[in-house]
Amino acid sequence: MKYRVGIDLGGTNIKAGIVNEAYKIIREASVPTLTGRSPEAIMDDMAGLVEMLLLDEKIEKEDVLGVGIGSPGMIDAVHKIVVYSNNFGWENVAIGAYLEKKLGFVIHISNDANCAALGEVKAGAARNAKNCVMITLGTGVGGGVVVNGRIFEGGHAGGAELGHTTLIAGGEQCTCGRKGCFEAYASATALIRDTKRAAMENEKSMIWRLCGGDLNLVNGKTVFDAMQTGDETARKVVKQYLHYLGEGITNIVNIFRPDKVLLSGGVCNQGKNLTEPLQNYIAQNSFAKEKGWLPEVEIATLGDLTGILGAAALVEEE
Amino acid sequence: MKYRVGIDLGGTNIKAGIVNEAYKIIREASVPTLTGRSPEAIMDDMAGLVEMLLLDEKIEKEDVLGVGIGSPGMIDAVHKIVVYSNNFGWENVAIGAYLEKKLGFVIHISNDANCAALGEVKAGAARNAKNCVMITLGTGVGGGVVVNGRIFEGGHAGGAELGHTTLIAGGEQCTCGRKGCFEAYASATALIRDTKRAAMENEKSMIWRLCGGDLNLVNGKTVFDAMQTGDETARKVVKQYLHYLGEGITNIVNIFRPDKVLLSGGVCNQGKNLTEPLQNYIAQNSFAKEKGWLPEVEIATLGDLTGILGAAALVEEE
Repeated sequence: MKYRVGIDLGGTNIKAGIVNEAYKIIREASVPTLTGRSPEAIMDDMAGLVEMLLLDEKIEKEDVLGVGIGSPGMIDAVHKIVVYSNNFGWENVAIGAYLEKKLGFVIHISNDANCAALGEVKAGAARNAKNCVMITLGTGVGGGVVVNGRIFEGGHAGGAELGHTTLIAGGEQCTCGRKGCFEAYASATALIRDTKRAAMENEKSMIWRLCGGDLNLVNGKTVFDAMQTGDETARKVVKQYLHYLGEGITNIVNIFRPDKVLLSGGVCNQGKNLTEPLQNYIAQNSFAKEKGWLPEVEIATLGDLTGILGAAALVEEE
Repeated sequence: MKYRVGIDLGGTNIKAGIVNEAYKIIREASVPTLTGRSPEAIMDDMAGLVEMLLLDEKIEKEDVLGVGIGSPGMIDAVHKIVVYSNNFGWENVAIGAYLEKKLGFVIHISNDANCAALGEVKAGAARNAKNCVMITLGTGVGGGVVVNGRIFEGGHAGGAELGHTTLIAGGEQCTCGRKGCFEAYASATALIRDTKRAAMENEKSMIWRLCGGDLNLVNGKTVFDAMQTGDETARKVVKQYLHYLGEGITNIVNIFRPDKVLLSGGVCNQGKNLTEPLQNYIAQNSFAKEKGWLPEVEIATLGDLTGILGAAALVEEE
């Protein structure tokens, strides 16, 4: 039996896990990231986790195919460098070289959104797909692209940033500095903003009751819950949100024509209420409609396991 | 010496050329396409052109590496099928199988916009680039993408349609059925539309004089000529057009991070007046700005040779 190690380098915790050839996590552990520390301190903790896990499972070093790391930020996968991560305040941290020296394993690294997509292809909702795009609807909109079974990162650092392509140029302010990006309309943050705005304009909306009269308590679920009660204001917000998502996914279809488009993030608890209208939307709006390939739109399935499994999936077969 | 044959299957003419290993066209010929004829009649003409050229140059069949075809429409390059072309009224024409049987050469086929990009990589402005995106600003906006030296078409038919991604969702009507695509703002057609609109709103604009008072005579050059005379109306149209182009190219940068972004089409006669502001635009607007890779924005150089050279470039080394 051979093993992969996946490390999910997050802003809050560093999680690591040993993954077997069936893509099951057989043991995992985590430590707080404590950002603000030196890169070396954080990388030493990563190495320590890996060594502890292997010791606990009595796995010999020669049975480890390699270590994969999923990290937020802009990653140079070829040179194994975190080019830039505002979460950690890192610039040009040569994480691959450092950990290869320290651990003696081949290190692989990619952006966490890319890892998530690859993980779903290896072990989740897109198992056996060759081409897959995964959209994570969270604080931002993360895009992960798998082409021919491998992560597509673009030719140089900063590619595959699907959240930072325009939906409405000149529109809502985006975190990247531009106005009108997909992220500025389809993230959970954007949905919460639009929920609050709609409530402000409709003082009788159920949204107010569901957040106890305090709009600071609105979350990404509030508007769906309000819609369930028959609230018209909420229905309009959801309809508009699905329209934005539909437009953004249609763009992705017109560029990548993947086997599947996967969605993840808290909003995805809405399940078929989300995927069915989106499936219809791309059928009606993608280029050449039924003459072109229409991918399935599905919810990602790995959930909390994504980070470790996706990172481990960076390690290829021998 | 080995040779490639490139066929540029156009709506008006079928052009074919023999291309040597230095990517020079040593002989070419063309016949009218006469669309409306059966696919077989058109394919027979393609085969006839190829055989005539080889005969004229006294090239033996064993010295031909293969034949490449650039075609408008939606192409299935793997199965060598024209899935759909509204120019020819074709659906699922198995052009590869037909011509392989007829000619005895390996046939390669791709969308003409893709071929154009590959041609520029092999023999034009992006020579030696591994990753390149080419945008053709014509009646529509065609996108050709080269990743790692090969055409990127997406996972299935209908990918790499960069002209059909939103710039302003819900905006100007696009030919694809959606509203607000890049094509609906950045094509020559769109520029002419915006030139006419601006003239309608400004009866003293120089645009009127340059088209002899007949807005039907406005072309993609009119507004640039009017701007040269100091016309304020024209200046605003050009400024807005550059903004649209800048937004669309920024999207491409954020997804593909190519070595170069090339532009082609009549508008490109504006040269540095076009590329310099666009270069500045992506530097200021692409994701992570100077921390990410910033490609050069340049004008394509193959011009009329693109069709044949790009098609020939589909034929790989032995």
